[in-house]
Amino acid sequence: MSKSVTPKSQDYSKWYTDVITKAELADYGPVKGTMIIRPYGFQIWENIKNIFDNEFKKTNHTNAYFPLFIPKSFLNKEAEHVEGFAKECAIVTHSRLAVNEEGSLAPDPKSKLDEEVIVRPTSETIIWSMYQKWIKSHRDLPILINQWANVVRWEMRTRLFLRTSEFLWQEGHTAHATEKEAIEETHKILNIYQDVVENYMGIPLSVGRKSDSEKFAGAVETFSIEAMMGDKKALQAGTSHYLGQNFSKAFNVKFQDIDNKEKYVYATSWGVSTRLIGALIMVHGDDKGLRLPPKIAPIQIVIVPIYKSQDDLNKINIYIQSILDYMKENNITCYFDTRDKLSPGFKFNEWEMKGVPLRIEVGMRDVNSEILTVARRDNNTKETVDVKDANPFLVKTLDTIQSSLYNEALAFKKQNTFQANDYEEFKKIIEKGGFVECGWDGTEDTESKIKKDTNATIRCIPFEQKNNLNCIYTQKPAKYSVIFAKAY
Amino acid sequence: MSKSVTPKSQDYSKWYTDVITKAELADYGPVKGTMIIRPYGFQIWENIKNIFDNEFKKTNHTNAYFPLFIPKSFLNKEAEHVEGFAKECAIVTHSRLAVNEEGSLAPDPKSKLDEEVIVRPTSETIIWSMYQKWIKSHRDLPILINQWANVVRWEMRTRLFLRTSEFLWQEGHTAHATEKEAIEETHKILNIYQDVVENYMGIPLSVGRKSDSEKFAGAVETFSIEAMMGDKKALQAGTSHYLGQNFSKAFNVKFQDIDNKEKYVYATSWGVSTRLIGALIMVHGDDKGLRLPPKIAPIQIVIVPIYKSQDDLNKINIYIQSILDYMKENNITCYFDTRDKLSPGFKFNEWEMKGVPLRIEVGMRDVNSEILTVARRDNNTKETVDVKDANPFLVKTLDTIQSSLYNEALAFKKQNTFQANDYEEFKKIIEKGGFVECGWDGTEDTESKIKKDTNATIRCIPFEQKNNLNCIYTQKPAKYSVIFAKAY
Repeated sequence: MSKSVTPKSQDYSKWYTDVITKAELADYGPVKGTMIIRPYGFQIWENIKNIFDNEFKKTNHTNAYFPLFIPKSFLNKEAEHVEGFAKECAIVTHSRLAVNEEGSLAPDPKSKLDEEVIVRPTSETIIWSMYQKWIKSHRDLPILINQWANVVRWEMRTRLFLRTSEFLWQEGHTAHATEKEAIEETHKILNIYQDVVENYMGIPLSVGRKSDSEKFAGAVETFSIEAMMGDKKALQAGTSHYLGQNFSKAFNVKFQDIDNKEKYVYATSWGVSTRLIGALIMVHGDDKGLRLPPKIAPIQIVIVPIYKSQDDLNKINIYIQSILDYMKENNITCYFDTRDKLSPGFKFNEWEMKGVPLRIEVGMRDVNSEILTVARRDNNTKETVDVKDANPFLVKTLDTIQSSLYNEALAFKKQNTFQANDYEEFKKIIEKGGFVECGWDGTEDTESKIKKDTNATIRCIPFEQKNNLNCIYTQKPAKYSVIFAKAY
Repeated sequence: MSKSVTPKSQDYSKWYTDVITKAELADYGPVKGTMIIRPYGFQIWENIKNIFDNEFKKTNHTNAYFPLFIPKSFLNKEAEHVEGFAKECAIVTHSRLAVNEEGSLAPDPKSKLDEEVIVRPTSETIIWSMYQKWIKSHRDLPILINQWANVVRWEMRTRLFLRTSEFLWQEGHTAHATEKEAIEETHKILNIYQDVVENYMGIPLSVGRKSDSEKFAGAVETFSIEAMMGDKKALQAGTSHYLGQNFSKAFNVKFQDIDNKEKYVYATSWGVSTRLIGALIMVHGDDKGLRLPPKIAPIQIVIVPIYKSQDDLNKINIYIQSILDYMKENNITCYFDTRDKLSPGFKFNEWEMKGVPLRIEVGMRDVNSEILTVARRDNNTKETVDVKDANPFLVKTLDTIQSSLYNEALAFKKQNTFQANDYEEFKKIIEKGGFVECGWDGTEDTESKIKKDTNATIRCIPFEQKNNLNCIYTQKPAKYSVIFAKAY
């Protein structure tokens, strides 16, 4: 297989798929729209997952597991929820295969289920049916549960990591005695999302509230983190929903409060998914493949020996042993690539494709001169360093790469975020690509007309509002300043 | 809710369900046969999972994720496999709900799938369809992939943790160039299973090969770890399969070997599941609830303060701070239970039910006498210890509990494992309960007659064989010594 990818500038979408394929991150499954996450892609997911999981646990959340299968009737209990999910769900109708009259394997008619079962598109309904059982008193609150799970939404137009019929995610579902506490929880989680995505994944974000038409089916308010991809389109990278009493009323979840009165519980839900890996690729990737921020890279440093004989390789091994030891002690993943019969050039290309932040090249000349050659993946520079200074240099350079990738993405995002003086200018910017910060009169009518015209949607109503704007479309005084963009 | 359980001796099955419910480990889901794993149960699973995951990674396995949905036709490719799984699978036939003529929500006939999709009962077929794509040369081998996932087998008679329609497990799927290497892998994994279950979960095992009638549908040979439950029935706690070339032939997975010849790949698969939690309960539990081995307990030590005023509580807090600090430094989970308005007695019962290995009771009298009262969950003994000696004492006692629970279970297993001189004696023992080690002539006919008579099955053909036995049923010279028992 050729190890080069279609240039970004030539075909962004093909570049994206090429990187995924050639870095061996994922592959399409046999059932339309399904995805295999290959080992290297899954290691990235495990790293991201562990960081989030740790943050959730630090804030007193615990993990649990709820069933994959939801009775059809549950979906129907929350009016907006069924609207949002009934159109794209996997429905289980039978429980047995048998050989039919034509001699082929088919669902056995005798095994038809009394009530069809839905494969969870999200778990609010099944979880709230259980909370109904578990919550009696204010003593049982809050419930702060998260689950790591697979969910299914039957998508017609699929794209690896971004939109697949099945994906992996975490979904938090919390229950609170007061509105105040539930709203605080919604924001606490949004802060965790922002922290992890910006400071570990190196992806700068716009953060805010969703407009009513873009919010989660069943939420009172949805908050989201939005990122700008390399093609200047937006990607919703995580959402945190304040659900009010919508689900507690739908599932009749009341508690006896401290004042002995029965009240409906307040709820939140929130999630991030394997979609984040799509963001990672599109924000940091270049024409040589992935570029991974050190904090989530499965391999942070790779050492490629350049040698002609086993004797040389042994000498190189002794030479770099103190680096391997030091990195191990400091929990930095350093891989000494001694795979036989692969040329150094082949290995360089492979690790560049896979986005390893630092590569060390060591030949006998380096051994004899007591130096190392260190190549940075983020900016493709090479430097020579005395072997005795190598360890602190490498650690420091990893830090530098972490912040450089973030700063580079931030500069790109700023450079492609615009103000528009009028709707004509707005349309030109959207067509060319980028975020537009502008005024919106707050009506769904305006929002949908802009969407129809330009395909741009309101990505969020940022927490930091600009005052005294007019609506970009109606020119009426704006109710909010918003960010418009085309989105994945 | 009452905090006591039905005594084991009165109704073992009810005792089991009571412990699960009252220790808040799990609950039934709304769809028949599905299960919710509640936070405390899930913490136990996370601990078990992390130990296994670590062992798999140490032996060069990597995690990946394959789709939930398998095309119906795939199941049909391996003859025994379809036999084994077609009878109890969830079948997805539609992808959309719509309101029908009668005004109710039903599968939209227009969304009927061209080919039905099966919810994975196990992933051999989908994984081997991908290996077909990934494996070309001996350079691509071995592939050592594991996945943590949910699987579905539509069970009619369900029991929490032991047999549910959906369960969580890990499934390893490896591909090798030689038979020898694949067989070694099968045994390597079996050793990991035995190590973790015996040395972490404290469950003594019988280990061996399955008879042909009990092996995995599609395997050449199945090896298993078998445990004895508190009611003397056997539980298959994990299996490791040598699959030979069955799946590589079914999915046409060939590689070019070092000698330039095309050969079919050799395979293994292996799994343990949330069923292990069922074993944990039934091996160690007593009439007060769970008893957890320290190495997998979510909370290893609980400190319950006995106090009348906030001032007392503050003094107790200062008094035990050095214990909290020491345990944290040593990665021992120690929970200081300061929950208000719950009596110490209530807390004692709750932590006993939840199986916390060590409980420390501290009142003002203990503070003033500079002592602590330490209660062991495994044997219900209490001891007083000088506070200055507490830390090493607690660490040592946790070790003692770990080995005591194992030794107690081992003694029980030995005590209820019998030899039988003739078939009459055999039947009596099986009826009374226990394992029987005896000779078997090696025929399926004998095996099935014994099963029909007694409901006992061959749990395994132990690696350590006894010689010169006769078959317990036919009295002919035995081909193998085997373990018979009734099983879950």
